[in-house]
Amino acid sequence: MAKSLSLGIVLFDGFELLDVFGPLEMIGMYPETFSLYMVAEHSGAIASAQGPKSVIDQVFSDNVQYDILLVPGGQGTRGEVDNPVILEWLRQQSKGAKFVTSVCTGSALLARAGLLDGIRATSNKSAFSFAESQGPGVRWVKQARWVEHGKFFTSSGVSAGIDMSLALIKKVMGEEAADQAAVWAEYEQHGDASRDPFAGVYGLD
Amino acid sequence: MAKSLSLGIVLFDGFELLDVFGPLEMIGMYPETFSLYMVAEHSGAIASAQGPKSVIDQVFSDNVQYDILLVPGGQGTRGEVDNPVILEWLRQQSKGAKFVTSVCTGSALLARAGLLDGIRATSNKSAFSFAESQGPGVRWVKQARWVEHGKFFTSSGVSAGIDMSLALIKKVMGEEAADQAAVWAEYEQHGDASRDPFAGVYGLD
Repeated sequence: MAKSLSLGIVLFDGFELLDVFGPLEMIGMYPETFSLYMVAEHSGAIASAQGPKSVIDQVFSDNVQYDILLVPGGQGTRGEVDNPVILEWLRQQSKGAKFVTSVCTGSALLARAGLLDGIRATSNKSAFSFAESQGPGVRWVKQARWVEHGKFFTSSGVSAGIDMSLALIKKVMGEEAADQAAVWAEYEQHGDASRDPFAGVYGLD
Repeated sequence: MAKSLSLGIVLFDGFELLDVFGPLEMIGMYPETFSLYMVAEHSGAIASAQGPKSVIDQVFSDNVQYDILLVPGGQGTRGEVDNPVILEWLRQQSKGAKFVTSVCTGSALLARAGLLDGIRATSNKSAFSFAESQGPGVRWVKQARWVEHGKFFTSSGVSAGIDMSLALIKKVMGEEAADQAAVWAEYEQHGDASRDPFAGVYGLD
């Protein structure tokens, strides 16, 4: 049995709850394949946009290289795009990571770090112009549930992260494992990355 | 403006992540209507079934009466059904609560506490017999996304809690608020409580 893949979930004040815990519900069903670490600039606990706080397992200065990164969105990204510490950490981590994933405006952070230049990527539909403004060189895809390009998996807003995480499980473990996770969580997965029922709601069609 | 409703989310070792944070994503969009409190028997932090830990805001012995209870499921419920402290706390809270809600095997805890006798309720489809065994007097509904009966809102497994929470928002704030929350989270809600795509998977049709 191969060593499990380490997944570093980057937390910051005002992260969006479901951006983090939707994907972790699915990925967390396979603890022999994925090991989960909540990571932040400082130790202690971090408050989500909705209030509830999560405990941090490791900090940036531990210099651990993660196999997979998960970057959530949320109101907090509006400030973090101007935080040079998180941007530099994302740049360093991305060099060694096998997969770099984001949910919602997490892609705005990746874009601001310069990691998505020339890459096809998507973001939250109600904040799409904010994401675009952080990376003019990104090949932004307005209509998508999620987008896979090389090692980057970026998803649309909030609940779309669940489908993106199932796509990651499929990539790493195969389709059966992804389907099993969805059924166990009684989740009707959106298996088609290009089907986007919400782009039109926000005038992005 | 009326005082906001306090929502007590009951945590215990091995709670299921999405059972808690799916509903809190939706309900947390309306902080002027709902105030969120993570509650447990002991202070500190509580580890989910998947590993990530949440910080506790208040403990049972604070004797706070919540307007709404949210009882998640997860592997931890297998032990908690034999914990007289949590069962007694649920009984005391339910007397004064306006709404008592559960996700997944959270309804097994409510059933074991004797709160669902004569009440229509549902539970996780892959653990339905466990829930049934905790409350022979409950009017268990095998095919349902969620069930509303009086002040009790019980949902099916994991992601079904999101739909149940939207039904609660609809009950408290109206349909427009529920629909807005779903769209903002880019979630295709299951608006029909009786439509259950997963009962058949587990032979419950």
